[in-house]
Amino acid sequence: MTDCLGDGAGDMTPMDLYEKLTSQGDTVRTLKTEKAAKADIDAAVQLLLKLKVDYKQVTGQDYKTGCPPSECSVSQDNGPAADGEDMVDPWNVSTTNAKGVDYDKLIVRFGSSKIDQELVDRIEKVSGQKAHRFLRRGIFFSHRDMHQVLDAYEKNKSFYLYTGRGPSSEALHMGHLIPFIFTKWLQDTFDIPLVIQLTDDEKYLWKDLSLEDCHRYAVENAKDIIACGFDINKTFIFSDLDYMGASPDFYRNVVKVQKHVTFNQVKGIFGFGDSDCIGKIAFPAIQAAPSFSSSFPQIFKGRKDVQCLIPCAIDQDPYFRMTRDVAPRIGYPKPALLHSTFFPALQGAQTKMSASDANSSIFLTDTPKQIKNKVNKHAFSGGKDTVEEHRKYGGNPNVDVSFMYLTFFLEDDEQLEKIRQDYASGALLTGELKKRLIETLQPMITSHQERRKQVTEETVKQFMTPRPLNFSF
Amino acid sequence: MTDCLGDGAGDMTPMDLYEKLTSQGDTVRTLKTEKAAKADIDAAVQLLLKLKVDYKQVTGQDYKTGCPPSECSVSQDNGPAADGEDMVDPWNVSTTNAKGVDYDKLIVRFGSSKIDQELVDRIEKVSGQKAHRFLRRGIFFSHRDMHQVLDAYEKNKSFYLYTGRGPSSEALHMGHLIPFIFTKWLQDTFDIPLVIQLTDDEKYLWKDLSLEDCHRYAVENAKDIIACGFDINKTFIFSDLDYMGASPDFYRNVVKVQKHVTFNQVKGIFGFGDSDCIGKIAFPAIQAAPSFSSSFPQIFKGRKDVQCLIPCAIDQDPYFRMTRDVAPRIGYPKPALLHSTFFPALQGAQTKMSASDANSSIFLTDTPKQIKNKVNKHAFSGGKDTVEEHRKYGGNPNVDVSFMYLTFFLEDDEQLEKIRQDYASGALLTGELKKRLIETLQPMITSHQERRKQVTEETVKQFMTPRPLNFSF
Repeated sequence: MTDCLGDGAGDMTPMDLYEKLTSQGDTVRTLKTEKAAKADIDAAVQLLLKLKVDYKQVTGQDYKTGCPPSECSVSQDNGPAADGEDMVDPWNVSTTNAKGVDYDKLIVRFGSSKIDQELVDRIEKVSGQKAHRFLRRGIFFSHRDMHQVLDAYEKNKSFYLYTGRGPSSEALHMGHLIPFIFTKWLQDTFDIPLVIQLTDDEKYLWKDLSLEDCHRYAVENAKDIIACGFDINKTFIFSDLDYMGASPDFYRNVVKVQKHVTFNQVKGIFGFGDSDCIGKIAFPAIQAAPSFSSSFPQIFKGRKDVQCLIPCAIDQDPYFRMTRDVAPRIGYPKPALLHSTFFPALQGAQTKMSASDANSSIFLTDTPKQIKNKVNKHAFSGGKDTVEEHRKYGGNPNVDVSFMYLTFFLEDDEQLEKIRQDYASGALLTGELKKRLIETLQPMITSHQERRKQVTEETVKQFMTPRPLNFSF
Repeated sequence: MTDCLGDGAGDMTPMDLYEKLTSQGDTVRTLKTEKAAKADIDAAVQLLLKLKVDYKQVTGQDYKTGCPPSECSVSQDNGPAADGEDMVDPWNVSTTNAKGVDYDKLIVRFGSSKIDQELVDRIEKVSGQKAHRFLRRGIFFSHRDMHQVLDAYEKNKSFYLYTGRGPSSEALHMGHLIPFIFTKWLQDTFDIPLVIQLTDDEKYLWKDLSLEDCHRYAVENAKDIIACGFDINKTFIFSDLDYMGASPDFYRNVVKVQKHVTFNQVKGIFGFGDSDCIGKIAFPAIQAAPSFSSSFPQIFKGRKDVQCLIPCAIDQDPYFRMTRDVAPRIGYPKPALLHSTFFPALQGAQTKMSASDANSSIFLTDTPKQIKNKVNKHAFSGGKDTVEEHRKYGGNPNVDVSFMYLTFFLEDDEQLEKIRQDYASGALLTGELKKRLIETLQPMITSHQERRKQVTEETVKQFMTPRPLNFSF
C-alpha cells in the first residue's frame, strides 16, 4: 500500500492516519470538555489539523468521523480520468483502441503490480513447472501480493484458489474459459484446493431473470467448468443461493464485511446510486466472503488464516480492492490476486465479448461448422484489402482478432512467433491465418463438448456439495 | 390503501398508476419508433402527462422509470412534521408528553387503523375467548388488515404469527415481554404456529458487539422467551446468524425483497445515510422475509400463501410498511399487523425503556427486593407533594408510572378501575399504589425466573431447530 502514499506522511497507511485522527479528535474534545489550558487545546488542535492535511494528501479524501478510508487504490480509481481513457468495472469494459484496453495504464490506475519476467521466472522456479502460456504471453498481466504467496509457499505454507462466474445464461463462450483454464493450471501446479463461486444471486439482482433461472444457469455453467478438468477431490463449486443457506460461517463472514463497508465506499468503488436496490448495494460483501478461509470450515477445518489467491479478469478487481481494504479490520489476511486481460470479441478488441450476441464470440456449444463460419465471417482482420497489398505491406497482428485468439490458445511459442512474423511480413494471408485458428479451435471445442457430455448430474452434485477436500497444511 | 389517495385519481393505487404509466410510456415509445400519425402520438403523450400528474398527486413523488412507488403510508411518514411531535422509529422513540407518545396521531401518520371496540368484540366473537387485557385496555391499539385475517379465519383459512427481538444484551426487562405475552395469548386462542426471529445479525451491525456475543445473547434471550410458555410443538425460534445458513428458502426471500427495495426507499423509511454500512442498508429485507410463509418450508410444506400476522411494538412498523409494499410485487400476501404502545420507563412515559440503564426498568432477573426498591425509588409518581394535598386534590393516574404498569399487568378490570378512581380522588396514596404494583410484579417475576430455570439447553435446541410444527391447513 505504501507505493501510493504521498510525500510527507511518513510510512503511515491511510488506516493508521485515520485511527490517529480519530483519537486526536477525542483528545481535543476531552481537553475542551475539561476546560484545559488554552495553550494545550491550541497545540492539540494544531496537531489535529496537520493530521487532516496528511490524511487528505495520502487518501485524496477529506477526513470524516466514523468513515474509515478506503484502501488508497480504491480512491485512486474514480473511473477514466480523461476522455479516451478506458472504462473498466465489473459491468462495463470499453476502449476506443483497436489493440484493446491499455493494461499498463490500468495497473497504475488500480494500484496493482505488473507481472514482469522476474515474477514469471520465480513462479517457474518455485513450482518447478514451465509457466503457463497465459503467463508467458502477458495474458495474466497484473497481480497483488503474488510474491508474498510464493514466499510463504517456499516456507511450506499452503494457500487456496478462489475464482468464480456470474451465471447469466446457459451458454459460455471461450472468453469465460480463460480464468478456469489458468486456475486449473494453478491447481495442478501447486496442488491446492479451489473454491468456485457462482453468483446466481448477483445475476438475479442485476438482470431481469427469475431466481429459478439464475440457479439453473449456475448448475449448467458448473458442468462447463467441471469439463475444464478440475480435480473433484480438491474443488468445491457453489451457487450463492444454495451455499448461503447451507453455511452459517459463510453468512457470518458476509455480515462482517457488510459491517465494515459503507454506502459511500461502494458508491465510490462500483458507482452505485440512490436508486439502486439494496441487494446490489450489499452484494459486494458476498463476492468478498470466499476470500476468507473461514467461509469454508468443511475444507479448512475452521482455520481462518489460510491465504487466498484469486485468478480473475481485471474487471473484477474492484471487488477485491474492497475486500483487501476490509480484511485486516476483521482479522483476516488480504487475498492475493492475478489479473487477466480481456478476451476480445470477434469484431475486435474494443469491447469485451457479450454472451447475448451469438456472433460476438465462439460459444462452447458451437459446431465445427459454426466455428469455421464465425471466424471466416466475423473475426476482425489486420490484413490488407487485397492479396497484392498484403504481400507487399504485410498484416497487423496487433489488431487481428484471429492472431489474438491464437495467442490465447496455441500452445507452441515458436509456431506462434512464426505466424506473427509471417503475417506481419505478408507471407501469411488472412485466410491462412484464419485457417490456423479454425484448426486450433475446432478440436479444442469438440473435446470440451465431449468432456461436458460425460459430466453427470451425480458428478455436478458431488462438486457442489459442501465437504472436506484433499488438503494438507 | 385507498384512505391515503388524493382526490381525482379515482380508485387507483400508486402501484396501479405506476403500472399504467410504465405501459403508457411503452406505448408512446412504440408509436414514435413506428412513426405513427402525429395526432395519435400527441394523444398518447397527453395521457402519459395526465397519468404523471395523477401519480404525483397520489404518491407525492415524481414518476421515475424503473422505480416503483413506495406504499403510500411509507411516503407519509417523513418523521415528525412539526416541533413537539413524537419521534418513533425502530431506534428512537421520544416524546415531550408525560402521558407518553400520542398514539392517535401515530395511527394517522403511519396510515394504520385503530383497534376499536368493534374489532375487539369481533376478535372475541371469532375466537370465542375474552379479549386479552392488552386489547381491552388499548395497549395493542393499532392494526393493519386484522379484519381480513378474521374474515379468512372464519372461512377456516388459518394464519401464522411472527414476532421477534433484537438480542442486544442478556438481560430482558418487562417491556420486552409485552409482545411475547400477547403473542402467546394469540397462539393459544387461535391455535396457530409461531415463528420468532432473533436478529443477532442486526445487533452486530448496529452495536459495538462481536458476532459471538450477539449470537450468545440470542440463545440467552430465547430462554426468557420460552419461559413465557410457548407451545414447543407450534413454535420455531431462530437466530438469523444460524437460520440464514440453514435455509436456502429464507435467503431466497431475502434476496427477492432486496431486489425490490431501493436505497432511496430505505433512506426515506429508516433515515439511512451514505455513511451507513451496507449491512444496515440491506438488513430490512432480513426482518421482512419471515413475513412470507415460504421462508419456512419445513413448517408450511412449501406453501407460499399462508397469511402472516405480526404482533409488535409500533416502532417496528416501518419494517413492515416496507414489507407490505414489496409483498404483492414478489407474489406474496401482505402480512397483517397488531401494534402495541410502548412500555414506559420507570422515570416516566416520555421515553422507551433502555436495556442499558438498570434503573430505567424492572429486569426479569431482579430480586423481589430490587423490584421493591426500584418501584419505590424510581417509579415516577402522579401524586401530590404532601399527603394533605394528595387527600385534597387527588393524584393523576395518567402520568403515574406505577398505575401505568398495573394497566399492563393487573388482570382484574374492576380492581384496576377502583385503583384509578381511588388514586384520582386521593383515597389511595402513592405509597399504597406502589405497594399494589410491587405485590403484582414480585410473584410474576419470581415465577418467570422459576420457569426460565426449567428451560434446559436441550429445550432451547429443540425450539431453535428448523422442523415441522403441528399445523393443519
